[in-house]
Amino acid sequence: MALHLIERDRQGASVLSEALQHALEKIGKCKLCRNLSEGEYCEVCVDPRRDKSLICVVENPADVFAIEQSGTYRGLYFVLMGYLSPLDGIGPDEIGLEAFKNRIIEEEIKEVILATNPTVEGEATAFYITKLVGLQGIQISRIAHGVPIGGELEYVDSNTLAHALSGRRLITK
Amino acid sequence: MALHLIERDRQGASVLSEALQHALEKIGKCKLCRNLSEGEYCEVCVDPRRDKSLICVVENPADVFAIEQSGTYRGLYFVLMGYLSPLDGIGPDEIGLEAFKNRIIEEEIKEVILATNPTVEGEATAFYITKLVGLQGIQISRIAHGVPIGGELEYVDSNTLAHALSGRRLITK
Repeated sequence: MALHLIERDRQGASVLSEALQHALEKIGKCKLCRNLSEGEYCEVCVDPRRDKSLICVVENPADVFAIEQSGTYRGLYFVLMGYLSPLDGIGPDEIGLEAFKNRIIEEEIKEVILATNPTVEGEATAFYITKLVGLQGIQISRIAHGVPIGGELEYVDSNTLAHALSGRRLITK
Repeated sequence: MALHLIERDRQGASVLSEALQHALEKIGKCKLCRNLSEGEYCEVCVDPRRDKSLICVVENPADVFAIEQSGTYRGLYFVLMGYLSPLDGIGPDEIGLEAFKNRIIEEEIKEVILATNPTVEGEATAFYITKLVGLQGIQISRIAHGVPIGGELEYVDSNTLAHALSGRRLITK
């Protein structure tokens, strides 16, 4: 990309450079949810129509974007900007968990939805947050793991299939 | 494949032909679960270590194979050999639902797990079976739909993400 810009599109390179500089100057982190934001607080946190009793913990701003696109979630977010990774020096403080705990105690949060990725690191982070928040008497839930919509059982990996079976939902009793 | 066999591997073609003929003669349907079987009843149905109070409804023999590979399910199966598709002339009788209903009443089944694919046809079939079996006072459940294990939220489609959120599981209260 760099070669293309310098060789054939020097004007484009200048526009891109300015846009990047602008983004660097203007975009910071929301003081409440740590998501990327142009203002002190992000659009979701200041929206009065959001359900302030529900908070969804995700790893990255891209996850917030994906959940917003699904159009079904009306609560708040908390963006870790990563996951627990002690070997890389990323502990609870680096992903803002101390601030998260305080926020949960101060505000009237009724449910914390753990939407970290279903990877080893994501599960470990979800487990840590469960331990951290569990003592505050707040309901904690984990997003469902299973067969993706439109998928077929025979092409799904064994581990996901095991989770889909163990996590089955009752329809009638 | 046909050209390769006839041009370069005539002996292989003969072996394949015999194997196919053997399979055609020997392999039929299990009288209980409709899965492919060499005997009158399949290996799963005659296995005394299987939990006979649990029955998992799947579309194809390949789904049985996938679930067996996951190594977590110890109940019985019922193989529809397709799904409801009225436009193609496939109704409840063609996928063995009448026999399934009778089997459930006769045997001591406690739970029916609907593991049809999360496609439009699979969901419709699951819905039909729920209505059919629901009146018998048997517990019915549906496999979990959500983010596959090892997947990342940002690459999952909106519909699956919506299901993962709505189907979230409580960890603590």
